[in-house]
Amino acid sequence: MNIKSNPIGVFDSGLGGLTSVSRLTELLPNEDILYLGDTGRVPYGGRGRETIIKYARQDIEFLLKRDIKAILVACGTVSAVALPEIADDYNVRIYDVVNPTSQKAAAATRNGRIGIIATEASVRSRAYENCLLRLKPDAQIMSRACPLLVPLVENSRVEPGDLVIETVVAEYLDVFRQAGVDTLILGCTHYPLLEQVIGAYMGPEVVLINSGAAAAEQLTAEMRTAGLLNDQQEPGLHRYYVSDSTENFAEQASIFLRENACFEVRKVDLDSF
Amino acid sequence: MNIKSNPIGVFDSGLGGLTSVSRLTELLPNEDILYLGDTGRVPYGGRGRETIIKYARQDIEFLLKRDIKAILVACGTVSAVALPEIADDYNVRIYDVVNPTSQKAAAATRNGRIGIIATEASVRSRAYENCLLRLKPDAQIMSRACPLLVPLVENSRVEPGDLVIETVVAEYLDVFRQAGVDTLILGCTHYPLLEQVIGAYMGPEVVLINSGAAAAEQLTAEMRTAGLLNDQQEPGLHRYYVSDSTENFAEQASIFLRENACFEVRKVDLDSF
Repeated sequence: MNIKSNPIGVFDSGLGGLTSVSRLTELLPNEDILYLGDTGRVPYGGRGRETIIKYARQDIEFLLKRDIKAILVACGTVSAVALPEIADDYNVRIYDVVNPTSQKAAAATRNGRIGIIATEASVRSRAYENCLLRLKPDAQIMSRACPLLVPLVENSRVEPGDLVIETVVAEYLDVFRQAGVDTLILGCTHYPLLEQVIGAYMGPEVVLINSGAAAAEQLTAEMRTAGLLNDQQEPGLHRYYVSDSTENFAEQASIFLRENACFEVRKVDLDSF
Repeated sequence: MNIKSNPIGVFDSGLGGLTSVSRLTELLPNEDILYLGDTGRVPYGGRGRETIIKYARQDIEFLLKRDIKAILVACGTVSAVALPEIADDYNVRIYDVVNPTSQKAAAATRNGRIGIIATEASVRSRAYENCLLRLKPDAQIMSRACPLLVPLVENSRVEPGDLVIETVVAEYLDVFRQAGVDTLILGCTHYPLLEQVIGAYMGPEVVLINSGAAAAEQLTAEMRTAGLLNDQQEPGLHRYYVSDSTENFAEQASIFLRENACFEVRKVDLDSF
């Protein structure tokens, strides 16, 4: 059987990875996508390394049971913390967010000063930093964990003019503005929803790198080169799996996909993987 | 063997339940306590009913393996959502937070207007409301889910003068102040850390009911009556179990216990229960 027609598997700790699906759908409208959101255990970003690795393995095992042709890890925390240790254990193409995001940032910077915002676990792992330094050894890199951004995004506190998100963003980003970074990595797939607020605070001369979009772009380029894209002419089918209740999924998912869509969504048990 | 000398088991989705342990320690300094915090899956309050019930069962099964003489469910969400359905399945004394908290609120109100703040799942369950109406059928009750309070507390945003917590508290509580409630139930065991900020906003005439403390007080009274308290004269031993990394546990726990303490803490796997 030709694996070209198999779906692409995408997973995230929750629904933030849908920002990556959004870009993937623009680039590859004919691909079938199977999305897993571990909504029963979200968020991963404040948890310890061992826990993140355990959950990431269960997410991957779940997708591997479903004949996917590649996995897009649309989660900054799993990409930074778990993949360096576990990716080689699986016989499947795995695309992460750290590498393509770092490549885009290294190419975008003019003054060599790059900022990284991400979850606590991602920042602790130094994965973005190490990757950037391999690509651009003379870069000056600053990183900061922003643990309140995920809950604020999940509560739809993303609009310019909202005092709470603007105060929190200013607190977290002040250090980057002081340092004169010209490129800022949004190292968690929830953060693209804050592009307007972050962009307004950092100013138009600072390039924001959307990690979920970067990952979708790299996957597209590499799978095209490898001849693994689907030949079908119809729009791809998207199926969604979550580990918590499917209730309100459509509403929550629409926030991240920035469109209203119809969803077929099922609940799954990840403990058994 | 006399079960009087067995420990009291306490659990919460995370560390908020330590506000209950804090009160329990004041009341019963000679009791051994075994605390389980499901830090690998916290928070429960935004999750669906089935997920909360599944996690609560695993938490209870874990404690039952450890010869505890009673269980204090120091979690508003589990007490409201899961216990009404599962408590009868276990042959052990289980103390919740909803009943004693509602009793204290019903006794405290002078004008019959009672407010409830809690997690989304707790509010959706209407458990506090139903319990209050049984105790005081003519009460006027308002409830509101406050999903940002748990992440803000966990990020230590609890001090008066902090613009973020003060803005969020004002948004959530405005409706209660407008309605003239004279009693406000803090229906999640994280919220006592916000007593100062909430108290300042609501004013000194509004009684705040600390749900974790209420649960500890009821347990104390009932176990004393039943002759089940420990006779030992030494200070009780406290043991802590968490499902995420034990790193930084002491630091985080100190926030909730409002004291610096030495901790013996172990990591456990709850999937297998």
